[in-house]
Amino acid sequence: MAETPTTQIKFGILGCAEIARKLSRAISLSPNATIHAIGSRSLEKAAKFAATNNFPPHAKIYGTYDAVLDDPEVDAVYIPLPTSLHIKWAVLAAQKKKHVLLEKPVALNVGEFDRILEACEVNGVQLMDSTMWMHHPRTVKMKEFLSDKSKFGEIRSIYATFTFAADQDFLENDIRVKPDLDALGALGDAGWYCARAILWANDFNLPKSVTALPGTIFNKAGVIISCGAFLRWDDGRVATLHCSFLANLTMSIVASGTKGSLHLNDFVIPFEEKQGTFTTATESGFTEFVTGWNPLPSQHTVMTDIAQEVRMVTEFARLVKSVKHDGAAVEKLWPTLSRKTQLVLDAVKTSIEKGGESVSLS
Amino acid sequence: MAETPTTQIKFGILGCAEIARKLSRAISLSPNATIHAIGSRSLEKAAKFAATNNFPPHAKIYGTYDAVLDDPEVDAVYIPLPTSLHIKWAVLAAQKKKHVLLEKPVALNVGEFDRILEACEVNGVQLMDSTMWMHHPRTVKMKEFLSDKSKFGEIRSIYATFTFAADQDFLENDIRVKPDLDALGALGDAGWYCARAILWANDFNLPKSVTALPGTIFNKAGVIISCGAFLRWDDGRVATLHCSFLANLTMSIVASGTKGSLHLNDFVIPFEEKQGTFTTATESGFTEFVTGWNPLPSQHTVMTDIAQEVRMVTEFARLVKSVKHDGAAVEKLWPTLSRKTQLVLDAVKTSIEKGGESVSLS
Repeated sequence: MAETPTTQIKFGILGCAEIARKLSRAISLSPNATIHAIGSRSLEKAAKFAATNNFPPHAKIYGTYDAVLDDPEVDAVYIPLPTSLHIKWAVLAAQKKKHVLLEKPVALNVGEFDRILEACEVNGVQLMDSTMWMHHPRTVKMKEFLSDKSKFGEIRSIYATFTFAADQDFLENDIRVKPDLDALGALGDAGWYCARAILWANDFNLPKSVTALPGTIFNKAGVIISCGAFLRWDDGRVATLHCSFLANLTMSIVASGTKGSLHLNDFVIPFEEKQGTFTTATESGFTEFVTGWNPLPSQHTVMTDIAQEVRMVTEFARLVKSVKHDGAAVEKLWPTLSRKTQLVLDAVKTSIEKGGESVSLS
Repeated sequence: MAETPTTQIKFGILGCAEIARKLSRAISLSPNATIHAIGSRSLEKAAKFAATNNFPPHAKIYGTYDAVLDDPEVDAVYIPLPTSLHIKWAVLAAQKKKHVLLEKPVALNVGEFDRILEACEVNGVQLMDSTMWMHHPRTVKMKEFLSDKSKFGEIRSIYATFTFAADQDFLENDIRVKPDLDALGALGDAGWYCARAILWANDFNLPKSVTALPGTIFNKAGVIISCGAFLRWDDGRVATLHCSFLANLTMSIVASGTKGSLHLNDFVIPFEEKQGTFTTATESGFTEFVTGWNPLPSQHTVMTDIAQEVRMVTEFARLVKSVKHDGAAVEKLWPTLSRKTQLVLDAVKTSIEKGGESVSLS
């Protein structure tokens, strides 16, 4: 992308995770962000990553994560490291006054996340998790529908599922099935998105209780590879989440309100990069002999020239610039959403550990 | 519809339920069926129903249900009476050698259904429940997909929901919220379809356990108006059902298998009478930067000139003719499916009554 007079926030990337390829591209495509450095435990690996991911020629290549944090030109870091390393590197980054874009799940538990949060607050740096779909313009449009009392009414139930079929190599070797790396397994990875979607649809009101569903599946190392949970609010609202590494790619939301319904089947990653669709229905009824629907649901398409992950980077960089150059306070919304999502995951995990006992959240 | 040389099975209808309007039309449109009689506790009501529903001029109008059963020309009865009356009238009908098309839920519990089943067996009459969507050609096509090991693989999870927004009058006065009539409430009505869909997708293998989800909502009379349940099989398969009278019309299935996924949002009543759509995906993955899906899911449209309820009547009448005129044995498939569906409903109800304790089904 051509340079603009916009202040460009300089990113350092910690590690060469697969997802960092997508984020590197997003940073490059973002008008107010640029890749300044990458660090890996292996200098060679970092160099190779930079070469194969169209890094700008001036990008610094470091053989340690510390070197990235010590580079005074780095404004912000993107941390796609295994979850177990988040607390160390996010806290260190904050202490070095680097703003933090953190992969999900944000921590192994909310206790760890609170230490990250505290470090960010003490050091005045912006924190945001990398839940890309939150930044798609489709998400805004869907939220408008869910918030419309005349079209959707009050939410009564939501189902959110994210599954994908991992191959044998993934199930044995991926960091997401290793108890010392991403110890939350499918719950922390795919389940994060489901929990976030459920909270999002419920205006981020925490449920009263979270109950793990029977039948959690663990791998040999004891990491969750498939599970589900049921969430319940005091006013009768309910939600179900299901996440798994053992079934074909599925990412659906079915939400029902007193007056309307919302459906989509690609909430995490839209089917197509430049557009997102969803279906709504309001005051649905039937034709005379109940042989069809009247009115029919409506399909909506939201075009976007800018992909959701680019929008996320742009929004993060905008906040960083406000803090760093304009003296603004950090935006607390994003870490608040991260924390609530982590609280739900923690409750699911606790309920699983307690054999399906309900866990109170309020 | 013009008369054909086909033997037409003569239907008697017990009662003037709203759903009987749809079924009367279906019988009229079915080439091998005809409306012969209707009985109501009120002769006037029966006459008015016949007049406003295009009954043939020769149709008999009776002021009792017994009169329909005593009419020697009636081959089969359609019973849309409140569930609590099924046992009495289905058993009586069988004893009078009338074949029985029975509204769902088929009984208040499987014990009652077994008495209906026994009466039908002893008297050699065909029994079928009125679950119309089972007869849509779309259902056949979806089953082909679910059974295809290369396209769907083994089923891992399914979510089935059916909700509709009942108005205040319904919630206070409809037979479906009266403890002495349709005592199973939303579970027996909307939940029936969800349980059937879950069993259907699982080749009618009963789950090992059924667990009611927290948060069942009852009306003042103690009838369920919203509930959910979680089903689990020994091999790790799971299913969730959700049914409610308190949310906008929603009828979705989300099914995930090891290799594929299936989605539709109108499984009980198709959006349009003459066609049904559904979406499938197989071995779904992502584009290079995980910014879109590759391959994309496929949408399928199944056209049908004959609506699902007409197909149901035609199939039922075909079986009745085989038994009555061709000496064939009754088809046991349909009552077997009814019984399994009722077993699941019974288990959900028991689990609700036991405060969410798991109920074993195998």
